[in-house]
Amino acid sequence: MTMRPPAEIGMTLDQIDTPALVIDLDAFERNMKTLADAAAAAGVKVRPHAKTHKSPVITLKQMALGAVGACCQKVSEAETLVLGGVPDVLVSNEIVGATKLKRLMALTRLARVAVCVDDVVHIDMIDDAAAAADATIDLLVEVNMGGNRCGVEPGEPALRLVQRILRSRRLRFRGLQAYHGTAQHRRTPAERRAEISQAIERARTTRDLIVANGIPCPEVTGAGTGTFALEAASGVYTELQCGSYIFMDADYARNQGEDGQPERKFEHSLFVLATVMSRPTDDRALCDAGHKAASVDSGFPVIHGFDEAEYVRAADEHGLLSLKRPTNRLRIGEKIKLIPGHCDPTVNLHDWYVGLRGDRVEAIWPVAARGAMF
Amino acid sequence: MTMRPPAEIGMTLDQIDTPALVIDLDAFERNMKTLADAAAAAGVKVRPHAKTHKSPVITLKQMALGAVGACCQKVSEAETLVLGGVPDVLVSNEIVGATKLKRLMALTRLARVAVCVDDVVHIDMIDDAAAAADATIDLLVEVNMGGNRCGVEPGEPALRLVQRILRSRRLRFRGLQAYHGTAQHRRTPAERRAEISQAIERARTTRDLIVANGIPCPEVTGAGTGTFALEAASGVYTELQCGSYIFMDADYARNQGEDGQPERKFEHSLFVLATVMSRPTDDRALCDAGHKAASVDSGFPVIHGFDEAEYVRAADEHGLLSLKRPTNRLRIGEKIKLIPGHCDPTVNLHDWYVGLRGDRVEAIWPVAARGAMF
Repeated sequence: MTMRPPAEIGMTLDQIDTPALVIDLDAFERNMKTLADAAAAAGVKVRPHAKTHKSPVITLKQMALGAVGACCQKVSEAETLVLGGVPDVLVSNEIVGATKLKRLMALTRLARVAVCVDDVVHIDMIDDAAAAADATIDLLVEVNMGGNRCGVEPGEPALRLVQRILRSRRLRFRGLQAYHGTAQHRRTPAERRAEISQAIERARTTRDLIVANGIPCPEVTGAGTGTFALEAASGVYTELQCGSYIFMDADYARNQGEDGQPERKFEHSLFVLATVMSRPTDDRALCDAGHKAASVDSGFPVIHGFDEAEYVRAADEHGLLSLKRPTNRLRIGEKIKLIPGHCDPTVNLHDWYVGLRGDRVEAIWPVAARGAMF
Repeated sequence: MTMRPPAEIGMTLDQIDTPALVIDLDAFERNMKTLADAAAAAGVKVRPHAKTHKSPVITLKQMALGAVGACCQKVSEAETLVLGGVPDVLVSNEIVGATKLKRLMALTRLARVAVCVDDVVHIDMIDDAAAAADATIDLLVEVNMGGNRCGVEPGEPALRLVQRILRSRRLRFRGLQAYHGTAQHRRTPAERRAEISQAIERARTTRDLIVANGIPCPEVTGAGTGTFALEAASGVYTELQCGSYIFMDADYARNQGEDGQPERKFEHSLFVLATVMSRPTDDRALCDAGHKAASVDSGFPVIHGFDEAEYVRAADEHGLLSLKRPTNRLRIGEKIKLIPGHCDPTVNLHDWYVGLRGDRVEAIWPVAARGAMF
């Protein structure tokens, strides 16, 4: 259940209990501004993904820099955001089930809420739920951008769903959900450009077909931290859904920029603070952050600012650090900062953010939608 | 933070919100009895690992079948167990840090508590914390069984730590922590036997050396679900620390028995109940359980009782199911049971167990130590 915070405001870094999810607030604020400035220059809106941070506090900070609201993947995340003061939330995902739809409809009384569909089954279910709740709600049609996850095929199949929405009793058509997930993590700019060019064409032709049928299509929303500059410059996308940019993780840092070097638009601002708990041999140290403190689905954490050791194996509650050469560091009790392999599922393991200004704790924020999977 | 339960007692399976962590109570109870009977027959004690289930309710059920208490990896897990009524808890791990040690000492007032060490640094820190709290505590010396994680080397190095414990002010020596983690998941019985034979020899020679120095060594504790029969028959181990046996996961089910077939001592009793949320093509379905509902560190979940589809890719909130042949099943809204790849970190993602007797919800138990990483 919810654990006590690992720190209190005013503590210094060495006093924080571990493992703890810490934010370098300076880097985090620079990241927020970098995306806000890029979007403003390109003339597109930003609707940052809250599945990354699961925190209405952070969404409101993003909105203070111009974001129009948030997106999220689950109704329970949307509840957490709306009840935390976020006035505009898009559930950028398909939602199935009577309980979830009833809760979604209740949220439409409190905020501007929208949800995605990729099948007539969704449209009919949501229309029924809206009628039962005497509510109305905006829908976006999710189109398969090539990532082959959810999403109706572009063109005619998408148009048919839009027409079905227009024949419903309670639903409004807002536009297209056009996110290409797998393209975000292609390592070279050429690969990302190739996949996003295809996505832009799919979105453009689908939007044009809808408009040619006399139906307004005000929004085309999508894009992520790996590719947003391409969607922003497309003239097709109206909204960017980047999430990870505020934190950056080790996996995104493996993306290359145009010069073949690691892409460095954004800085690492999120770390799992860990403690060395065992030092059995000269070439081996164990820290107290394993699977239950940092997700390894996109690779192991990377030790921040210390390249003489590597995180090479995770157990539930242990991280095995392999030392490349003799060092006086990594003694029992020493704290290290780990850059998570994948920030979103790592955040979801923790109950609290510890916000650091330099080495001092300035903020303690709840990961309010931690575990919000419904 | 803590989410509402996905079900209520008395509901049927089709009414449970998803993703949900469900227990087949009949299989779960059979698994508990199978280990209890095997240990009783071998004349060894059982101290099941609570890092698997994180629930004092489940530990008390294990104790009702003869277990002597629980082990766990973290002080915050020990707190949850002790405050939930468990009278005997071993923290089978090294604990570093003043805050954690202060909390550990407080627990010694409420229950029989022990902790592991593999370095003089630990012994001195714990002795200081015990003195400051006017407490005493039992220590086990963790010995490296060949898994090369924590643990002092066997023989003389272990003896020197035991002698240091005897020279302390506040510490008692209880025995050896002798768990071999990597051996649990070796696929063939021959591989597991080879590694555990080595572990047994390391434990035996270390214990004998300690005893030869006139020091009683009452406990040798270790073993897991993959190898416990070997440790139980060794004549060296006094306690088994199996955890996963109550649930079984897809990874443990890949271990082979003596006949070369998958080992079937224990049944799958833990599932992530998921809903099909999108069905874009004939060969592709998406369910609502991704990284945030089931850990993939030991492979993707396996669909229970349905081999016409395979879980082939996970995103944060999506599981991609690949269909091998046309089927009328996996329509939008259909529920499926997923066998987690690795039960321990999967349990840690959920706030509630939903206990099923057949298709009816009989119990709702909190995952009380969810997030207990301190």
